[in-house]
Amino acid sequence: MMSTALVVLSGGQDSTTCLYWALARFGAGQVSAVTFDYGQRHRIELDCAARVAAHAAVPHTVLPIDTFAALGGNALTDTGVAVQAGVDAHTQLPNTFVPGRNLIFLTFAAALAYQRDIHHLVTGVAQTDYSGYPDCRQTTLQALEQALRLGMEYELTLHTPLMFKSKAETVLIARDLGALPALADTHTCYQGQQPPCGTCPACLLRAKGFAEAGIADPLAERFRATQR
Amino acid sequence: MMSTALVVLSGGQDSTTCLYWALARFGAGQVSAVTFDYGQRHRIELDCAARVAAHAAVPHTVLPIDTFAALGGNALTDTGVAVQAGVDAHTQLPNTFVPGRNLIFLTFAAALAYQRDIHHLVTGVAQTDYSGYPDCRQTTLQALEQALRLGMEYELTLHTPLMFKSKAETVLIARDLGALPALADTHTCYQGQQPPCGTCPACLLRAKGFAEAGIADPLAERFRATQR
Repeated sequence: MMSTALVVLSGGQDSTTCLYWALARFGAGQVSAVTFDYGQRHRIELDCAARVAAHAAVPHTVLPIDTFAALGGNALTDTGVAVQAGVDAHTQLPNTFVPGRNLIFLTFAAALAYQRDIHHLVTGVAQTDYSGYPDCRQTTLQALEQALRLGMEYELTLHTPLMFKSKAETVLIARDLGALPALADTHTCYQGQQPPCGTCPACLLRAKGFAEAGIADPLAERFRATQR
Repeated sequence: MMSTALVVLSGGQDSTTCLYWALARFGAGQVSAVTFDYGQRHRIELDCAARVAAHAAVPHTVLPIDTFAALGGNALTDTGVAVQAGVDAHTQLPNTFVPGRNLIFLTFAAALAYQRDIHHLVTGVAQTDYSGYPDCRQTTLQALEQALRLGMEYELTLHTPLMFKSKAETVLIARDLGALPALADTHTCYQGQQPPCGTCPACLLRAKGFAEAGIADPLAERFRATQR
């Protein structure tokens, strides 16, 4: 396989849009995708990523990371906190969330890119809307790009096409790229439900973006069609 | 446990010396250590790290990383290279070696430090002698420190006390810090042998450092004592 770009594909709306952005930018046959199996609470994300990659006809690699589960929820510290299931009530994040997690994903993706002689890495992070994550911000990504270039002695460019886009703008970009059909296979719901619960913060943010863009969400359409 | 500093402890000579540097700098009871179980070829490294931590009486955490084995040796690429045992004949590195690996170790260590409210991270990397690794260089570590600070929104300092030291200087530092007894429990040999093979590049580099410092290697002394 000869690829020019590697996309970090989570199975969500933004990374799926980025996959199609990469196909438009680098050309069909020049793009591959990587997904991390890190013990995410909702295994459905992995299924979605696989379906999206198949939809886009790009080679897809799944890499395991068992470290977050070991680090998660402050387990393993000497205070004896047990690893708990579920999400933090305040942050709505799974307790396998670890600060700087995105740095890990991108560094492993960079290592895979290095091995495959790929010099362009694409990630769907955005500092608008989802502004709670410091490891998704432009300044962080710029510092990481520098660390990766120096640490691997390798010319690598991190592309973040959605960094400053609103959710509505991202929906319009997806439409223009022909990514809407693939968005029917993406996963957003914090509750891990299919059909999506429609009431969690992630579902509400997604719905707001499609509403503001004036476009029907293909994921919602899919389940509406099923129910008919 | 309340610690001020976290040391990345591989079970080797340099990280062990850094553990004692941290104890001198931050005080007994203020230091803990983390070791990564990443599928290293020689499990003896993990045993050495545990013995050194016990020797120094510091809390010790072992974190698993299964990703390198999945990435290793260009396995998982579409060219169908099988995962092979053994080391690369040219680099003498295990085929689980991945470019930028040290970036991963330090990022996971930073996440653990964040969870424990530790603001000082200590690593034994050096750009002298071992100059083959770009992810052990000063410029890389500076860029990574910036990425970690921004990505975790956390005040974190990376300490690299051996960065510009020769092996002989490191031996003298270890002596001055009272670390020589602990060095009897460290592991260096590329062949994974105890007693060390004495002929691999790592054994030769270690022997040269002790010889230049004019100090007997406690590891060699230990096996000499055993044989008597």
